Amino acid sequence: MIDFAATKSLFHLPEGIIYLDGNSLGPLPKKAAARAASVISDEWGDMLICGWNEAKWMEQPARVGDKIARLIGAVPGTVVMGDTLSIKVYQALASALELRPDRKVVMSDSGNFPTDLYMADGLIKSLGRGHVLKTPSPEQVEGLIDEDLAVLMLTHVDYRTGRMHDMQRITQKAHDAGALVIWDLAHSAGAVPVDLSGCKADFAVGCTYKYLNGGPGSPAFIYVRPDHVQHVRPALSGWLGHAAPFAFDPDYVPAPDISRMRVGTPPVIQMSVLETALEAWDGVTMTDIRARSVDLCEQFIAGVEARCPMLTLASPRDAAQRGSQVSFRFDQGYAVMQALIDRGLIGDFRAPDIIRFGFTPLYIDQDDVTAAIGILADVMAQRTWDCARFQKRQAVT
Amino acid sequence: MIDFAATKSLFHLPEGIIYLDGNSLGPLPKKAAARAASVISDEWGDMLICGWNEAKWMEQPARVGDKIARLIGAVPGTVVMGDTLSIKVYQALASALELRPDRKVVMSDSGNFPTDLYMADGLIKSLGRGHVLKTPSPEQVEGLIDEDLAVLMLTHVDYRTGRMHDMQRITQKAHDAGALVIWDLAHSAGAVPVDLSGCKADFAVGCTYKYLNGGPGSPAFIYVRPDHVQHVRPALSGWLGHAAPFAFDPDYVPAPDISRMRVGTPPVIQMSVLETALEAWDGVTMTDIRARSVDLCEQFIAGVEARCPMLTLASPRDAAQRGSQVSFRFDQGYAVMQALIDRGLIGDFRAPDIIRFGFTPLYIDQDDVTAAIGILADVMAQRTWDCARFQKRQAVT
Repeated sequence: MIDFAATKSLFHLPEGIIYLDGNSLGPLPKKAAARAASVISDEWGDMLICGWNEAKWMEQPARVGDKIARLIGAVPGTVVMGDTLSIKVYQALASALELRPDRKVVMSDSGNFPTDLYMADGLIKSLGRGHVLKTPSPEQVEGLIDEDLAVLMLTHVDYRTGRMHDMQRITQKAHDAGALVIWDLAHSAGAVPVDLSGCKADFAVGCTYKYLNGGPGSPAFIYVRPDHVQHVRPALSGWLGHAAPFAFDPDYVPAPDISRMRVGTPPVIQMSVLETALEAWDGVTMTDIRARSVDLCEQFIAGVEARCPMLTLASPRDAAQRGSQVSFRFDQGYAVMQALIDRGLIGDFRAPDIIRFGFTPLYIDQDDVTAAIGILADVMAQRTWDCARFQKRQAVT
Repeated sequence: MIDFAATKSLFHLPEGIIYLDGNSLGPLPKKAAARAASVISDEWGDMLICGWNEAKWMEQPARVGDKIARLIGAVPGTVVMGDTLSIKVYQALASALELRPDRKVVMSDSGNFPTDLYMADGLIKSLGRGHVLKTPSPEQVEGLIDEDLAVLMLTHVDYRTGRMHDMQRITQKAHDAGALVIWDLAHSAGAVPVDLSGCKADFAVGCTYKYLNGGPGSPAFIYVRPDHVQHVRPALSGWLGHAAPFAFDPDYVPAPDISRMRVGTPPVIQMSVLETALEAWDGVTMTDIRARSVDLCEQFIAGVEARCPMLTLASPRDAAQRGSQVSFRFDQGYAVMQALIDRGLIGDFRAPDIIRFGFTPLYIDQDDVTAAIGILADVMAQRTWDCARFQKRQAVT
């Protein structure tokens, strides 16, 4: 069993705050500042340009990718870091569409995070080849998989409700219809067990500033199924995805492996902080994390439902269909969340009426859950939220 | 006049090193480590998710863009930060091609940095609409501008030779033919005066880890001419380029201004280091920098030519046609550069036979140039480079 008190001690958790928003931005790992200082002063400062070799900056995107691979059921050498999640979605979809040139349908769902849909829309408009982006409700997706489908592009865990798709079954169904599948693991990596190899997922992408605690703007990752890689043409064909970047070849020749999904110069300082953050996962299995996450979520749901009758559960009641977050609906959700933050309980609001709470076993324990229930119950009972101060603030996080 | 001793004191320059490779990776500004520590501990650590508002992370890409705008002749509100230079090249070219739908020719030149050509090639393949990428020699470009040309995409200063295009004249000529122009300012921003507004350039892109000293992997910038912005469809239509990112609108509506060129979550830690690095430019004009840069380059050329007859000048002899670097050709250039680095003189090698030296007035002075000439002359005279140790190393920087 994991010593969760030990993992909690790895993080800086401000006094008086209960942080149930690690599914938006994970908290600071205590060692991050020292690593950043070392990269800046000892590596950049003293090695200058030689840092690319001496400090192994050039290999970092693959090295960090391997650490994440373990958490998402991928083998070493199949995941590489870089850019943002939006860019990685674009890369995956552009490549996938070229692997299914005779099909014109891209399907996602209406619960997907907007940037995935925007990037798909932008790509489809650029291509101008009559592709159609369908966004049925999450529940309708499986029933609409047919042989017109080129690419199914889904976010595994819904950012608002925490509803989780069945990755194994849906991937199989899409494959049976001859389609490819891209999984966005933004709310899955480090949150729930994922088995990309076992599911035979074609592509996966994700961000690292949520459950992986890489810090604001930490780079994204992309996975390509090993037997696809050599057939994937990188649409974003940057020099660091070239087979020999420093040959300065006038013609683009993609690297033979996952490195072809690299684009430009990696953010070394930012990625070093992520690399340090990932040390919290040493010796931790996603099975242990999942068991604890389910316990914490169940405890929270039971407590809130017992004490806050005004709130309606928006997440699936069945833990097997829920990620590592719990959401409730309430008309005045925005004002409620402001009142909670004012009391030191940080969760998140998502329009139009959802308040959500992320449960991150590495640093959230049962005492935090008990305290969070108490604060939420107080705020609801006292109608603290029902005043102009909380109604007027702008929603920007 | 600028106090160059004062600006030099802002940088960490390791003892015993003469650093003429700031055109590849600028050195560490002394204040950068403290800024990174503060962003990590005081902002991320203590503010957690609230940092997006409280520490103004969300506004940072525009705020930093404005600081760079001043150095490249752009007005505030026309430059925004994010991603890598490769991605910004793709964005600019994708948008420009849509503004000239009836034309099929993209022209660059054979001296452009490979990633620009690779990204253009990747985009053209994705579009599949018969666009052609022409790469004549830099000297032929002007003569080939005609009314078939959709987009002229040039790097202002050549990364190998330092040859500089006449931005004003070429932009005018392309506009006269009805084409759009994208300038890559990788070796120009902070190196030579640039007047994007005066030239009426359509798009410009650049990186910030060379003359702007933002550190390894510091984010890129993009400029769009103000009267184009509203007509530009972002091909990489990410949520942070949306008019209202936090409305989580299912449909993409681009921001009305340069913010539409934003894509995903910005690298806050990395960009904060860049923001601090840009403080070195406070009170500095590009006119003063240019005068000093020309002096340093002329001194270096004269000294090397007097003492190293084996080396052939690869850069233009006319300072008006040269950026802020000096390059020489020599068959054994790679081994020579290794021998120089071994003696503490850091420059760069570019295949097949170019050794290059960047002159960066903020922290390189005449004493450095004198010392560099001495080391280069010694190495050439003693044929230090002519031994297996220097011949065998791999070129990877």
